Amino acid sequence: MSTTIKAYGADDAKADLKQMNIERRPCGDDDVKIDITYCGVCHSDIHTVRNDWKNSQYPVVPGHEIIGRVLEIGKNVTKFKEGDLVGVGCMVDSCQECSSCKEDLEQFCEEGMVGTYNGKDKHLGGHTFGGYSTSVVVNKEFVLTIPENIDEKGAAPLLCAGITTWSPLRTWNVKKGDKVGVIGLGGLGHMGVKFANALGAHVVMITTSPDKAKDAKTLGAHEVLISKNGEDMKKHMNSFDFILNTIPVGHEMDPYIALLKRDATMVLVGAVEPLKPFHGGGLIVGRKRIAGSLIGGIKETQEMLDFCGEHNIVSDIELIDMKDINEAYGRVIDSDVKYRFVIDMASLKN
Amino acid sequence: MSTTIKAYGADDAKADLKQMNIERRPCGDDDVKIDITYCGVCHSDIHTVRNDWKNSQYPVVPGHEIIGRVLEIGKNVTKFKEGDLVGVGCMVDSCQECSSCKEDLEQFCEEGMVGTYNGKDKHLGGHTFGGYSTSVVVNKEFVLTIPENIDEKGAAPLLCAGITTWSPLRTWNVKKGDKVGVIGLGGLGHMGVKFANALGAHVVMITTSPDKAKDAKTLGAHEVLISKNGEDMKKHMNSFDFILNTIPVGHEMDPYIALLKRDATMVLVGAVEPLKPFHGGGLIVGRKRIAGSLIGGIKETQEMLDFCGEHNIVSDIELIDMKDINEAYGRVIDSDVKYRFVIDMASLKN
Repeated sequence: MSTTIKAYGADDAKADLKQMNIERRPCGDDDVKIDITYCGVCHSDIHTVRNDWKNSQYPVVPGHEIIGRVLEIGKNVTKFKEGDLVGVGCMVDSCQECSSCKEDLEQFCEEGMVGTYNGKDKHLGGHTFGGYSTSVVVNKEFVLTIPENIDEKGAAPLLCAGITTWSPLRTWNVKKGDKVGVIGLGGLGHMGVKFANALGAHVVMITTSPDKAKDAKTLGAHEVLISKNGEDMKKHMNSFDFILNTIPVGHEMDPYIALLKRDATMVLVGAVEPLKPFHGGGLIVGRKRIAGSLIGGIKETQEMLDFCGEHNIVSDIELIDMKDINEAYGRVIDSDVKYRFVIDMASLKN
Repeated sequence: MSTTIKAYGADDAKADLKQMNIERRPCGDDDVKIDITYCGVCHSDIHTVRNDWKNSQYPVVPGHEIIGRVLEIGKNVTKFKEGDLVGVGCMVDSCQECSSCKEDLEQFCEEGMVGTYNGKDKHLGGHTFGGYSTSVVVNKEFVLTIPENIDEKGAAPLLCAGITTWSPLRTWNVKKGDKVGVIGLGGLGHMGVKFANALGAHVVMITTSPDKAKDAKTLGAHEVLISKNGEDMKKHMNSFDFILNTIPVGHEMDPYIALLKRDATMVLVGAVEPLKPFHGGGLIVGRKRIAGSLIGGIKETQEMLDFCGEHNIVSDIELIDMKDINEAYGRVIDSDVKYRFVIDMASLKN
C-alpha cells in the first residue's frame, strides 16, 4: 500500500474552515473589518492549540498579533477609514464600564476581557476566532493604528510581545540611566531589550547562553550577564533598578532577586506556571519586590505603537507561510527563532 | 543519687556575665547610657540564642526591644537628658553616609547596620550585646524618645514588632477606607491590626484559628477571615488593597495572592525562610505584587512612637522575670503568648 502526501494549501484551509463552520460577524455599526496581512505566532497560540491550559475551545483559530488594512467600517467609526494600516492585539472586547476599563486597563476588566481567540464571543455566541485568518471584524475600541513608517511584518509582534514588555517598563517608570535587566532572549526578551534601550536605560541582558551575547548587543543591550556564572552574578548584586523577567517556565528566583537594588522590582511576564520556592529573606532584606504584568491596556498599546513609529522599532522576525505553522510551533518550543515567527497571510489567500 | 535544682537568680546572672567578660563601653561624647527597665522578647532572640541562622556569636545577650531611663549622656548629646524615657530597637549603629542612611533607611545601610546584639561592635571590637541586661550604651542617633503617656512595659515591643508592622503600612501608603488584611495573630500581627485600625483602614484578620476571632476584634479587626475556609476565602478574592503577612515560617502564598486587588501588594515581614512555590499567573493576572520589609529607619521609628503616644497604642504583653526566660521561649515557639513577653529588668537587678 502506498500513501501520497499532499501539501496542505489554501483550498484545503478554505474547505476546513467551511466544514468547521467558523463564522465572522458582519461589520456592525461600531466595527472595523480588517483584511489581515500578517499575524505573529505567540507561544500562547501553541498552549491554546494544544490545550495546555485546559481551557481551549475547539475549533481553535489562534493569532493575536494581527496586522492588516481596513476593509470596511461601521457607521459609528470615525477614527479609521478604508485602507488604514491597523492592528489587533490580545483583546477584542471588555465591559468598558468597570474601574479597570475606566482606567484604560481593559486587560484587567472585572467581567473578564474577551480574548482575540478562545474568548467568549458577545456577538455570535460561542467563542472568538483569531488572526490566522484572511479577515477579522473587531469593535473599533480594540483596533489600533499602526504607524505607516514602520515595517508592517515586524509590527505584528508588537501587539503582544511588544506591549507585554512595554507596559511593565512604563508602569514601573523605567527612565534614562536606570540599570535594567532583561532575563531571557526570546520573543518577549528581545523586545524588552529594544524598548529599555530606547527609553535610555543601561540594559543588561541576563541569559544562560553565552552564545546569545553578540545578538543581545546588536539588539541594544549594553552588557550581557551570564546567569550561570556565579562570580559575575555576584558582581551585579544589589545593583539593578528594574528587572524584566521573560522566562516562560517555572524557575529559581533567588539569584535574580539578589540582583535587585533596595526597593527595586522584578516583573514576571512569562511564567504562567508554578515558580520554584524563593527565600523570604531575599525580599525582606532590601525591601525588594516581585510583581506580575499582563499585556497592557488599549491606550498604552497605542502609545507603544506611536513610540515604535517615532523610534522605528519593530520585532525581528522570520516570515513564514501558513502551511509551515506546525514546523514553526516546534521551533518556538525549541527556542529556535529570531525572535518571532510572522505568518504571511497572502499564503492563506492565494 | 539525688540532684538539687536551684533557681537561677540575679546573683547567678551577675556571676555569669562577669565570667563571660561581657563588657559595655563607657558613655562616650556621642553616647547615651540607659538604665534598662524593660526588654521585649522577640522570636529573633530565640533564633540567635539557638544559632538557627548559623551566624550567632557567643556569648549572646539578646534583646532589641529596649525601654529605659537615661542614666548619663555624652557632651555632644543635646536631645536627651538624665531621666528621659527612651528606647532602643534593632540597630545601634550604621555608616550614616551611604544613600540608604541618608534616606533615613539605616536598616538597609550599605555597609550593614549594626544589630543591637550579635552585631559588629565598632567601639570595643567583638560583637554587640543586647537588652537582656541592666544597662546599655548607645550612640545618640539610635536612641528613641518614648512618649511619657504610654505604658512603659507595653512600649518595649514597639521597638521591633511595632516598627516592623508600621513601616510597610506607611511605605505602601495604607489609608482611611483601605481594606487591609493582616495574616497571623502573633507579636507582629497584633500590632499590625492595631496600627491599620488607627490609620483608618477596614481591617481583616486572616488566620487559621477560629478561636482567635474574638481577640482579633478586641484588638481592632473589623472582620476575621479563616484562611482554611475555602468558601470565605473565595468571597474575599481580589478585594484587598494591602496585605501584611506576618507568618514567621515558609507557607503557601497562592491563597493570599488571590485575595489581592489589581495592583495591590502583600508584604512579607516574618518569613525569613524559603517560601512554598507560587503560581506566576497569580501575580501576572491582576499585576499583583509581593514585597518584603525589614523593621524601619530611625526617623520612621520615632514617627511610629509619636503616633503611639497620640493614639495611646502599646503592645499587649505578659510581664516576666528574667529567670522565666526559658519557659517564655518555649511558649513563644508554641505561639502561646498574648502577644509579647516583656522582661521586667528589675528582676535582674535585685
